[in-house]
Amino acid sequence: MGNEINIGLIGLGTIGSGVVEILQTNSKLIEKRTGVKINLVGVCDKSLERAKQLKIDNIFVSDYKVLLKNKKINVIVELIGGYEPARTIIMDSIKAKKNVVTANKAVLAKCGYEIFQSAQKNKVNVLFEAAVCGCIPIIRTIEESFSSDNITSIYGILNGTTNFILTKMNEGMSYEGALKKAQELGFAERDPSFDVEGKDAAQKIFLLASLAFDAKFFEEAFTCGILDLTKKDMDYASELGYSIKLLGIAKKENDCVELRVGPCMIPSSNLFSSVNNEVNAVLLCGKQTGDIFLSGKGAGKLPTATVVVTDIIELASRSRVVQRFFQKTNLKPISETISKYYLRVGLVDEPGGLASIAKVFAEEKISISGCAQKEVNHTVVPVVFITHKATQGQIDQAVKKCNKLSCVKEKIVLIRIEDLK
Amino acid sequence: MGNEINIGLIGLGTIGSGVVEILQTNSKLIEKRTGVKINLVGVCDKSLERAKQLKIDNIFVSDYKVLLKNKKINVIVELIGGYEPARTIIMDSIKAKKNVVTANKAVLAKCGYEIFQSAQKNKVNVLFEAAVCGCIPIIRTIEESFSSDNITSIYGILNGTTNFILTKMNEGMSYEGALKKAQELGFAERDPSFDVEGKDAAQKIFLLASLAFDAKFFEEAFTCGILDLTKKDMDYASELGYSIKLLGIAKKENDCVELRVGPCMIPSSNLFSSVNNEVNAVLLCGKQTGDIFLSGKGAGKLPTATVVVTDIIELASRSRVVQRFFQKTNLKPISETISKYYLRVGLVDEPGGLASIAKVFAEEKISISGCAQKEVNHTVVPVVFITHKATQGQIDQAVKKCNKLSCVKEKIVLIRIEDLK
Repeated sequence: MGNEINIGLIGLGTIGSGVVEILQTNSKLIEKRTGVKINLVGVCDKSLERAKQLKIDNIFVSDYKVLLKNKKINVIVELIGGYEPARTIIMDSIKAKKNVVTANKAVLAKCGYEIFQSAQKNKVNVLFEAAVCGCIPIIRTIEESFSSDNITSIYGILNGTTNFILTKMNEGMSYEGALKKAQELGFAERDPSFDVEGKDAAQKIFLLASLAFDAKFFEEAFTCGILDLTKKDMDYASELGYSIKLLGIAKKENDCVELRVGPCMIPSSNLFSSVNNEVNAVLLCGKQTGDIFLSGKGAGKLPTATVVVTDIIELASRSRVVQRFFQKTNLKPISETISKYYLRVGLVDEPGGLASIAKVFAEEKISISGCAQKEVNHTVVPVVFITHKATQGQIDQAVKKCNKLSCVKEKIVLIRIEDLK
Repeated sequence: MGNEINIGLIGLGTIGSGVVEILQTNSKLIEKRTGVKINLVGVCDKSLERAKQLKIDNIFVSDYKVLLKNKKINVIVELIGGYEPARTIIMDSIKAKKNVVTANKAVLAKCGYEIFQSAQKNKVNVLFEAAVCGCIPIIRTIEESFSSDNITSIYGILNGTTNFILTKMNEGMSYEGALKKAQELGFAERDPSFDVEGKDAAQKIFLLASLAFDAKFFEEAFTCGILDLTKKDMDYASELGYSIKLLGIAKKENDCVELRVGPCMIPSSNLFSSVNNEVNAVLLCGKQTGDIFLSGKGAGKLPTATVVVTDIIELASRSRVVQRFFQKTNLKPISETISKYYLRVGLVDEPGGLASIAKVFAEEKISISGCAQKEVNHTVVPVVFITHKATQGQIDQAVKKCNKLSCVKEKIVLIRIEDLK
């Protein structure tokens, strides 16, 4: 593309403003270091207000199509977020033969395949490092470091909001208190459901798995959030030498992929256990490379804006259109996926309770590797079971049966134990 | 460079053989994914033997200059290691207008500036991701992810051998036992001095700091190895909530840089504490980006060879010559660097010992934040001191004085406590 890049920036929200600030402050440094000169040629936003604040109202347009018609512009930076009109803007930009930089995970998770195909057809590049895990160079690492390797699995703390909440719960706060704190600090939305139900992490693991496994999926990841967890579970996990994290997991097995999001117990000595607060982390396992673990801030104005600017600079260095290929890939039915499990059962404090539960496990051919009953002065006693490996199908069946037993007084809490070292 | 790359490979040792194997196995996958076709056009090694084993004796030459004269070849991959003749081969390749991929840390640490300058002059690229920390994409992350940011500090477990030895010592082995185990597993050389004295890590932090701070240094990093550490220190550290790791550290302060390698105490909850055995890890701190932490295998045939192949593919995508600039930068005198310290003093078990030590600290204006004397039935009792922040100059002076006291019966062990969370 040459050493000069003329960009049209759409969206002057938090990240957009950050990009403008970085370009205003660091343009000379960037040029000195990389030889690339970035010119902000046009900006578009819903209102003129932000452009005025940033002193770029002289290049403001209210219709993004004006930017697409500008022949000088060779990169459109889409930072409005959300699904529409972002999707249309991206597709229009590609059709206008503009390269695109975006931080839009929602659009890419929903119609990434379509976008990448159109980009290849129109011989332009779409870069999106900022769309997943903020400042962690995860897309680059998958697409570059593993280009001659086969990734076998991905594990990730992909959502900062839930990791912050779980960290605070581990420190002693209730779920409600931790959520409130997250909202106060700007780490959680007023309606946190997209985050705490695991949907945000699900979009991210979908996108990462598509790229890592060259896979075109027709289903979304199996998703479970953090709403069933209590402080009690954090404490029991800790006693057993584990911590609880919401992980996105993708594993390739022959021709299908296990793709899921859910709370997991992982050994306290594992790197993920030291990833706290709003920080994100990803573990990539490659056949040749072994494990690469990356962590960093998953969101925030300047961390994310820096990554957007990196993508812009990258476009200047690229001589070729990125080629991505995706093969139709089936997901492994969640009922067939295998792990060890932690179950917390609220048992009525009467003879025979433990025996009834043990009988159900035996019927479902699940072996129990450990069991702990706390001496508590309540009528309902929490009993914790750790199982050997079993399928989610077996466990679900057992939980369903147990929940019907008269001795079981609370909804059973089920957490997978991940085989990480 | 176009979509077809013709390489001349020099050196068929462990990594060179790995590169050949990956190209033989994964060429089609690479082409499908990236659109890049890699042709191995010529190989050069000391003897024909390895080329025969790899079934590439048909393209073998015994003089590397034959490869440089081959007009088809656009990339020379130098994998012989060591200083000379590697340095001459790299410089000759650049002068012959060949791009270079190398894994040679020794050459880059000693004459990287000269190599980069010559490459820029001859309009070719020199890529060297495999030279530091094996499969961790650390050079890429510094040069790309931080291209619009200012890195303020780098911390790294940069040497797999010493990390393996420290891990095993922490698990209960003696230094000698751990070294022997490392040698058996191929993680340590027969003469381990380059690793255990911290020299390997020093070359790496020198190189990383040069790139991260755009800095041309005229001195090497201050270096201290792991030879003074004992199992006792691991145990005390652990009791105090720390682990001991050999870290390479580079911090930018105004116009100078603190550059050192040495054993450090870091909180057990910090990510570095969970980096065990032969694994490497690097923490990059950026003004805008915040912290990025990366870890992975620091060595090994396939992990390193995969990175070399990534660099080769990268060359096909680059339209521009990498521009690197380096400004003359002074190192901060080590005596002026500041931290907290752990000191283990072997005191004779008689009245007045502790008082004498405390007096020396007071004279040097070092405040003590904690002190623990173990009740042991020996004539020499280990006493552990933790200090508040002080300069290395102050501490060195105090240690010198203490070592002269008649109550001090063993050489004092000094470990910096790093301010990591």
